[in-house]
Amino acid sequence: MNKIIEKKMLDFSNEETSLSETLFHNANGYIGVRGTLEEGVPGDYDTMRGMYINGFYDIIPMKQAENLCNFVEEKETMLNVADTQTIEVYADGERFSHFSGKTLSGKRILNMEDGITERTVIWESETGKKLNIDIKRMTSFHELSLFTIEYAVTAENFSGELEFKSYHKPKVRNYCNPKDPRLAAESHDHLKTIISCIENSISFAVTETEKSRLKCATAVAHEVNKSNARICTTEGEDNIITCDIIVPVKKGETVVVTKYSVFTDSLREKDPLTAGRNKLKRILDNGLNYYYGKQKEYLSRFFERAMMEIDGDEALNKAVNFNMYELLQSSAKDSHGNIAAKGLSGEGYEGHYFWDTEMFMLPFFVLTDPDLARMLLRYRYETLDKARENALLLGHKKGALYPWRTITGVECSGYFPSGTAQYHINGDIAYAIINYYLVTGDLEFINEWGEEILLETARLWLDAGNYVKGRFVLNDVTGPDEYTCMVNNNYYTNMVARHNLLWAARFYHMIKETASGKKLIKKIGIKEAEIKEMEEACKNMYLPYDEETGIIPQDDSFFSKPVWDLKKTPRENFPLLLHYHPLHLYRYQVCKQADTVMAFFLFDDAANKDTMLKSFRYYETITTHDSSLSKCAFSIVAAKLSLKDEAFSYFGNSAKLDLNNMHKNTKDGIHTANMGGCYMAVVYGFAGLKIGESGISINPFLPGKWTGYRFNICYHENNLHIDVKKDSVSVTLLSGSGTGITVCGKEFTLKEKETIEVNTNA
Amino acid sequence: MNKIIEKKMLDFSNEETSLSETLFHNANGYIGVRGTLEEGVPGDYDTMRGMYINGFYDIIPMKQAENLCNFVEEKETMLNVADTQTIEVYADGERFSHFSGKTLSGKRILNMEDGITERTVIWESETGKKLNIDIKRMTSFHELSLFTIEYAVTAENFSGELEFKSYHKPKVRNYCNPKDPRLAAESHDHLKTIISCIENSISFAVTETEKSRLKCATAVAHEVNKSNARICTTEGEDNIITCDIIVPVKKGETVVVTKYSVFTDSLREKDPLTAGRNKLKRILDNGLNYYYGKQKEYLSRFFERAMMEIDGDEALNKAVNFNMYELLQSSAKDSHGNIAAKGLSGEGYEGHYFWDTEMFMLPFFVLTDPDLARMLLRYRYETLDKARENALLLGHKKGALYPWRTITGVECSGYFPSGTAQYHINGDIAYAIINYYLVTGDLEFINEWGEEILLETARLWLDAGNYVKGRFVLNDVTGPDEYTCMVNNNYYTNMVARHNLLWAARFYHMIKETASGKKLIKKIGIKEAEIKEMEEACKNMYLPYDEETGIIPQDDSFFSKPVWDLKKTPRENFPLLLHYHPLHLYRYQVCKQADTVMAFFLFDDAANKDTMLKSFRYYETITTHDSSLSKCAFSIVAAKLSLKDEAFSYFGNSAKLDLNNMHKNTKDGIHTANMGGCYMAVVYGFAGLKIGESGISINPFLPGKWTGYRFNICYHENNLHIDVKKDSVSVTLLSGSGTGITVCGKEFTLKEKETIEVNTNA
Repeated sequence: MNKIIEKKMLDFSNEETSLSETLFHNANGYIGVRGTLEEGVPGDYDTMRGMYINGFYDIIPMKQAENLCNFVEEKETMLNVADTQTIEVYADGERFSHFSGKTLSGKRILNMEDGITERTVIWESETGKKLNIDIKRMTSFHELSLFTIEYAVTAENFSGELEFKSYHKPKVRNYCNPKDPRLAAESHDHLKTIISCIENSISFAVTETEKSRLKCATAVAHEVNKSNARICTTEGEDNIITCDIIVPVKKGETVVVTKYSVFTDSLREKDPLTAGRNKLKRILDNGLNYYYGKQKEYLSRFFERAMMEIDGDEALNKAVNFNMYELLQSSAKDSHGNIAAKGLSGEGYEGHYFWDTEMFMLPFFVLTDPDLARMLLRYRYETLDKARENALLLGHKKGALYPWRTITGVECSGYFPSGTAQYHINGDIAYAIINYYLVTGDLEFINEWGEEILLETARLWLDAGNYVKGRFVLNDVTGPDEYTCMVNNNYYTNMVARHNLLWAARFYHMIKETASGKKLIKKIGIKEAEIKEMEEACKNMYLPYDEETGIIPQDDSFFSKPVWDLKKTPRENFPLLLHYHPLHLYRYQVCKQADTVMAFFLFDDAANKDTMLKSFRYYETITTHDSSLSKCAFSIVAAKLSLKDEAFSYFGNSAKLDLNNMHKNTKDGIHTANMGGCYMAVVYGFAGLKIGESGISINPFLPGKWTGYRFNICYHENNLHIDVKKDSVSVTLLSGSGTGITVCGKEFTLKEKETIEVNTNA
Repeated sequence: MNKIIEKKMLDFSNEETSLSETLFHNANGYIGVRGTLEEGVPGDYDTMRGMYINGFYDIIPMKQAENLCNFVEEKETMLNVADTQTIEVYADGERFSHFSGKTLSGKRILNMEDGITERTVIWESETGKKLNIDIKRMTSFHELSLFTIEYAVTAENFSGELEFKSYHKPKVRNYCNPKDPRLAAESHDHLKTIISCIENSISFAVTETEKSRLKCATAVAHEVNKSNARICTTEGEDNIITCDIIVPVKKGETVVVTKYSVFTDSLREKDPLTAGRNKLKRILDNGLNYYYGKQKEYLSRFFERAMMEIDGDEALNKAVNFNMYELLQSSAKDSHGNIAAKGLSGEGYEGHYFWDTEMFMLPFFVLTDPDLARMLLRYRYETLDKARENALLLGHKKGALYPWRTITGVECSGYFPSGTAQYHINGDIAYAIINYYLVTGDLEFINEWGEEILLETARLWLDAGNYVKGRFVLNDVTGPDEYTCMVNNNYYTNMVARHNLLWAARFYHMIKETASGKKLIKKIGIKEAEIKEMEEACKNMYLPYDEETGIIPQDDSFFSKPVWDLKKTPRENFPLLLHYHPLHLYRYQVCKQADTVMAFFLFDDAANKDTMLKSFRYYETITTHDSSLSKCAFSIVAAKLSLKDEAFSYFGNSAKLDLNNMHKNTKDGIHTANMGGCYMAVVYGFAGLKIGESGISINPFLPGKWTGYRFNICYHENNLHIDVKKDSVSVTLLSGSGTGITVCGKEFTLKEKETIEVNTNA
């Protein structure tokens, strides 16, 4: 039951309908389908009727108001690739819609165990014909190209004719909203249909993008459970293909139409049309139930690895599962894509990948699905050359600078002071690679891919920084907190840069004598002297600290600015970025999100406890949490500082951010990073998980009214089950070759199937 | 002879033709006419065929790549308002052009005493018909609406028919060049013709702008010196009016066609058409020679007030006069306009007004034409309300923030870090007002307009700054040097802010008991407490100084950045702004132009001489002078520091920047600020002029090979003539009620007609 989200359909307003489009979207990391109503909505609704392919994009111009040297003047944007979800149903010519006749009852369901969304409706037409409708939708994890709609209609109180008009529209446009800077402002015809055909009632279409010249193939087939159905497939204007299914029904009879949509693209397939045709053939041979079964299996394995239960708060329990499920839906399953800020659930942030992936979403996969995490990290390796080019554009003589927002690895940020200037992205990616290594012990990944990234990002720090009186400083960068831009020695940035430099050198020594290590050294021409420079820069990295207050300032000049008066700021002026010119914000001590506090989360040894505590308390008073990435970091650090109440309070309802539409913009897509952040708040915060060179440890507590919680994680190929109760914590090694673990300060060695228990009340 | 610029027409290339369009443009501060050839140029030439009205603009969109709160998304642009300069001449049907037949001889002349440009040509047609052509053009200083062309053609070696086709095109477009960020990238139809008519062969047209809804009226009339001329005026497509003049000629006979164009606009006239009609009537009554006479008179007065002669360098002498003449041509004569970065000579920088006016051009007028200077300053008063609105947009609770670039007072800068963030514009305007007061003693101006500006700009400093440990600091501003942006405590900015605060309070006490003072206090609600705050901020203004080196850093963190290696930078990479991403530039010690050094020029007491000298020497090594505003400041400060050779060397050929097309972009318009800067280099630099509260002083030297120089200035309504010779300097009070003056450290009192002389060889 904690894996089923149900919502009664009572409110058919624009707002509620759009919200459900996000909450009930289907995605498998390759394709994403907004949960729009098959039959459509009134014309004045701002529905985002979209189907997306991870990594599939076109290039759009992004003119600069004043174009300075090497400013970015075009960007990639995730495309709405087709519409194969439209199905109209007619009962003796009367068209089913929630906006005519009467919806007697209706609900929408997300079943996370089955991996299916469902809409069940009892509807009465204006002339009194009653239909019982049940629509199931799935994007298959087993066959990533596949999206299915199983549309069942029962003629409750009449005999007559049911008609299904099912569409396949290869050419669609993106949603646009000129009022919101976080969405595309203009709609444009990106797609050209280059092939469309019908073969044995199966329709095929291939479209090509205008600038990026990518091809997307879609294939659509229908099955009907009635042999007397008349099926007619025709192509009309704009290559819209209509499959018209007419079935005579008797009262009480149920007609089931199954619609299979297959998506393939030229990023992954040489000939997407043929690939799609072959896939569809196999799919039709296997049949829908085969994929339903595979879906269930896949999710059963997923929820075993990613098991998390919370006692005493059923709604939270559901939300936690929902969040993990959404992370899975969002995450690419190959390295052609990654995890967009809103997954595949909507067009907010244009499908771009940010630091969100490495810092907020990836940790979940590292702990629960290391193979997938490894593949997600591979994406950054695949785009390393573009990061090298980006570094050159920014004037660096060497190294790689990852883009702030991108699809293919090219910088797509239009305002560089809070985009490209966020050099910490380099350190974030390095941190994620190091963390992956520490959790998995996968040195092969480091050898093959990881160290090349680490060395190139470390090189960039060397080129970007310089020495002042023996201290290595990093000037003119922007930290995670975008309310302060282009500052010197942003603490967070210097911390991740230091970590990056440290491990780049450390790994170098670990692999320099191996075959792949030697190959790498030759490939990128790295010299011992450069490694020494890295070690020196790391050792001498300047970290701001204010002697007088004992607090760590966010950057060199942060404390020379006045504190923003948050109490006197009218409620309607939040988030501040929508109400104040950035230059004004820059001139105050006010934070959009965790920045220095975020560094305390990443680095246990960032400072002594007293400094961290004082700093934490200080940043509490000046942080607006205007970003959904903020509170989880505060929660984790509060937990680290044994501020249990605060930890719980920051965690608060953030796990329900999307389910409860707390930011009022879930309609544009889910807040994927927040979902990962909530997961981390439980595991790293409440359970006190630490994984470092010295091994794994936990130090849990029970937050708030929770009476217990448990979760599974994977450490060095050992699958661990951690169970926290009121007075005790137990750890079970479900499978694996054994591991040491420190629980509440005590060291243990665990063998397979063994459980250890520590009394936490002692 | 030193007021005549002559150029032989030998080279008819695209480049040379465009350059002459600028050098031989006519302007009177109200209208400007590019020196394009009446008969046109080949279609592939990038001619900028323009006629402009100071302050006449339309609004164009300026979309931001990423639009943050209160970013500027449209801008004003100076419009090309009409084409009344096109005249084609045919000799028996053969059309005169330098690009057909043979130009036997030709020259272009700018006669600055007559205020006329002239082109004289001997041309032979393909069939051997020889024409002697003499074209004189004038924009009248006496009647600002008037532009005239006196077109004389002599049939040297044939009898036959001469035909003049003279055009009046009311609808024209602006020049565009998508490759140069300093010019508009797109051309657009801004004008709509709303009236066009012909009355007694005189043509009238009224156009209206698309967005700003301004109207421009043009009236064109022709006179011919031959009674047998057939004149036919007709209107064709696009409201183009053609005046066709056919005159039979005998060999040796000269036909003179005089074309009068009158420009009026709805910024200055309620009914521009009627105003234009009346003006034209009066003009035709007076006749051309009347205006030629008035022009000569006007310029004779101008060059008396602005007299400057340099012995021993005739070319320089000419250049100096040229520069002063161009300043006069560029400067508005009413407060509807100001002085654009390129005057009225071209469309570079879109006709925007910058700090250039107050800091580089105005000082010339303050010393030579205080009434005009007063009027130019009035422009800033007229736009004070818009500066108040701009301050609000930037989040300030009070005060006024002048726009970085504008026509009507609205911010038109697209990239705020090196635009709007240049808060020093406020201090620059304040400085100019204070300087005007110190030179003229005009307290009435302060009372009526100046103090309101000073108080509102001072208020802005109070709101923008804050106290840190008792010191008043100004964070996140950009100084004049755009290679470093959004820094804390830019020395230049803090210096002008301090001066602004000082005098805002000082004037307050001077006028608070006067009637107009009381009115002002009531109007803007200023309290004694606020004045105290200003005095405190002024007193405690933080000014960066590096104890260790004894050098003043450009800003708080300037010295924590590495020094840019200018020696290793390839020549072709200058100017740096066209070859390096700004974020890269920001991370180095490298200056586009004088910044700290500029402050030394403005404030004698900026620092002790040793600090200034050390700092000057330091900034010499890291300044690229990529801006044409830089070297004159270095020259003046070198002179102040008694570095005579350096002063002369920085002055160098900068006076000839446009005449010699040294920046290769004079075709886009003149570098007006540099012209003012060169003037200042002579007066404030070589002659060591200082005007402060304690009076006026000079301390001249003879730079380089100069054998003497002299100039006139006006101080407190005393017209002074200063004559510097090898061994002596003399000052004559040409007219006025008398003044004290310090010459080479000795104090004198001068009566009218009196001359004092100081031996400088003693």
